[in-house]
Amino acid sequence: MAPALHNALAVSLGDPAGIGPEVIAKCWDDRDALGIPPFVAIGDPRSVAAVWKGPIELVDNPRQAEAAFERGLPLIQLNAQQPDVPGRPSVAGAHASLDALELAVGLARSGSAAGVVTGPVAKEQLYAIGFQHPGQTEFVAERCGVAPANVVMMLAGPTLRTVPVTTHLPLGDVTQRLSSALIESRGRATLRGLQRNFAIAEPRLAISGLNPHSGEGGKLGREEIEIIEPAIAALAAEGWRVTGPHPADTMFHAAARARYDAALCMYHDQALIPIKALHFEEAVNVTLGLPIVRTAPDHGTAFDIAGENRADPRPMAAAMCMAAENAVRRAEAP
Amino acid sequence: MAPALHNALAVSLGDPAGIGPEVIAKCWDDRDALGIPPFVAIGDPRSVAAVWKGPIELVDNPRQAEAAFERGLPLIQLNAQQPDVPGRPSVAGAHASLDALELAVGLARSGSAAGVVTGPVAKEQLYAIGFQHPGQTEFVAERCGVAPANVVMMLAGPTLRTVPVTTHLPLGDVTQRLSSALIESRGRATLRGLQRNFAIAEPRLAISGLNPHSGEGGKLGREEIEIIEPAIAALAAEGWRVTGPHPADTMFHAAARARYDAALCMYHDQALIPIKALHFEEAVNVTLGLPIVRTAPDHGTAFDIAGENRADPRPMAAAMCMAAENAVRRAEAP
Repeated sequence: MAPALHNALAVSLGDPAGIGPEVIAKCWDDRDALGIPPFVAIGDPRSVAAVWKGPIELVDNPRQAEAAFERGLPLIQLNAQQPDVPGRPSVAGAHASLDALELAVGLARSGSAAGVVTGPVAKEQLYAIGFQHPGQTEFVAERCGVAPANVVMMLAGPTLRTVPVTTHLPLGDVTQRLSSALIESRGRATLRGLQRNFAIAEPRLAISGLNPHSGEGGKLGREEIEIIEPAIAALAAEGWRVTGPHPADTMFHAAARARYDAALCMYHDQALIPIKALHFEEAVNVTLGLPIVRTAPDHGTAFDIAGENRADPRPMAAAMCMAAENAVRRAEAP
Repeated sequence: MAPALHNALAVSLGDPAGIGPEVIAKCWDDRDALGIPPFVAIGDPRSVAAVWKGPIELVDNPRQAEAAFERGLPLIQLNAQQPDVPGRPSVAGAHASLDALELAVGLARSGSAAGVVTGPVAKEQLYAIGFQHPGQTEFVAERCGVAPANVVMMLAGPTLRTVPVTTHLPLGDVTQRLSSALIESRGRATLRGLQRNFAIAEPRLAISGLNPHSGEGGKLGREEIEIIEPAIAALAAEGWRVTGPHPADTMFHAAARARYDAALCMYHDQALIPIKALHFEEAVNVTLGLPIVRTAPDHGTAFDIAGENRADPRPMAAAMCMAAENAVRRAEAP
């Protein structure tokens, strides 16, 4: 299942009090059944040992991880000030999650790791220690020297990939925030990402409408006519294969999904409702537009079930497998 | 498959130039395989004969339909001024579709038919002949003496039922149109409909948030706090089993769907994206809050493929089966 990687993936544990350590360790347990590529975890080994009884192999860098992978869970040790209790986030844990993220990105930037998979973090805790970014995606973009506007979040599952044009906004603010320029830049980044990370030479992008029935020719809103159609025309004029604006409710059934490689959606829930309805356990958060590969499972820290051995490792496994596939595609690219 | 009905269903052909006649006739063809209950079509037999070569049994009323059903497609004849050409809507066709709808509703109101299933109509054509209602649903409500505000549109599939609180509005108008009173009245109508049409004694209603992540405690919008939570509290105070506001993106995977009987959504696409992503061919439009049973397939006239024998009868079949089930449940109700 796993494509051949030259290097291991760097996987940050995320918040040590969340389910990150547990699901990462479970991926190692099930590495053969789930087709997990070689990876190295990054963080405090005590966070893993608190929730998992398997063997941990301390290593110094991702290159050592492949040999160690058969013997135990490879881990680059970054000791926290104090170990966290599962389910109880702390300032020390926030620092630990940030240190792990920083090192994972650095290893991928330097070429030592094949890509980065990030465990879930607690934003509230990160903000408390001075973290300035909306989330890990923007942090990674900055460390890679890429403007946030040129980075897009894709949700990718087995039969659907979606990208939201606007993300964490009140629904009532979407209309005023939407612009042709924003749709074009997100569209371009998505199309290039499909070429680069997914090896789709001539990607097909389906662009949604904003209003019910795509506005019904202006009767239910004019954003399709004034904002979205000009953006589609501009992308088409550059030679991209783009269609739309499509009524969002008829874009996501099987026959419709077969007609495009990714759907560009106007707001958060328009993109996330279909991907999570169809692929809840397999949807992967893929960051496009970076010089490195970065994926993440599409779930949070789940403090309420941390330490109870109930966390489902499939989303993390899907994130690891997709990172490996993206890395292979990028290495193969002409 | 088909529950036992005392009377046949009344099925209006819809616009004679659309795919209604074809899919209704195909349902009769496949009546055994699809478990179709006895029904009587209503409209111009020439509209059916133009697209289908099977036997038509002209009858005078639904009571004759059951015996005729084995021999051919039972049909109550309402001749149009002139027969329509498939794919080419006309004024005569609009009158024919309205006449058929009127008679179907009348037969159900009088108890002669077990319920109404409506074929797809062309709203533009209906408006041209003076039709004043937004759609067939509101027309049926008026003929039944029910205020439009007390009628709700449910989309029902095998594993999910959704109801939009607001429907055909520009997305930017949703926020201002939403009110606690509207959520409560739609919620009540939905809960009563689940009891009456689906025989769920203590229905569970999951109510969505409006904003991403349900507003994140007010950071991404305050409608959850100011509008939705008070409505949930009011419904709960009446003894209903209601939960929410739930982030819309995590409401529709299989495990989440198992926790409720219907999802009450704040706007059109929030309700229609998940039902059509999951159940495109099986989703049925069910009108709740009426004194009669009324369902419809969740598709339009599809003039572009009318007359080509390419229309999929499964949505119409699902609408017929659900109407029969609703009728049986209502007849059995205490």
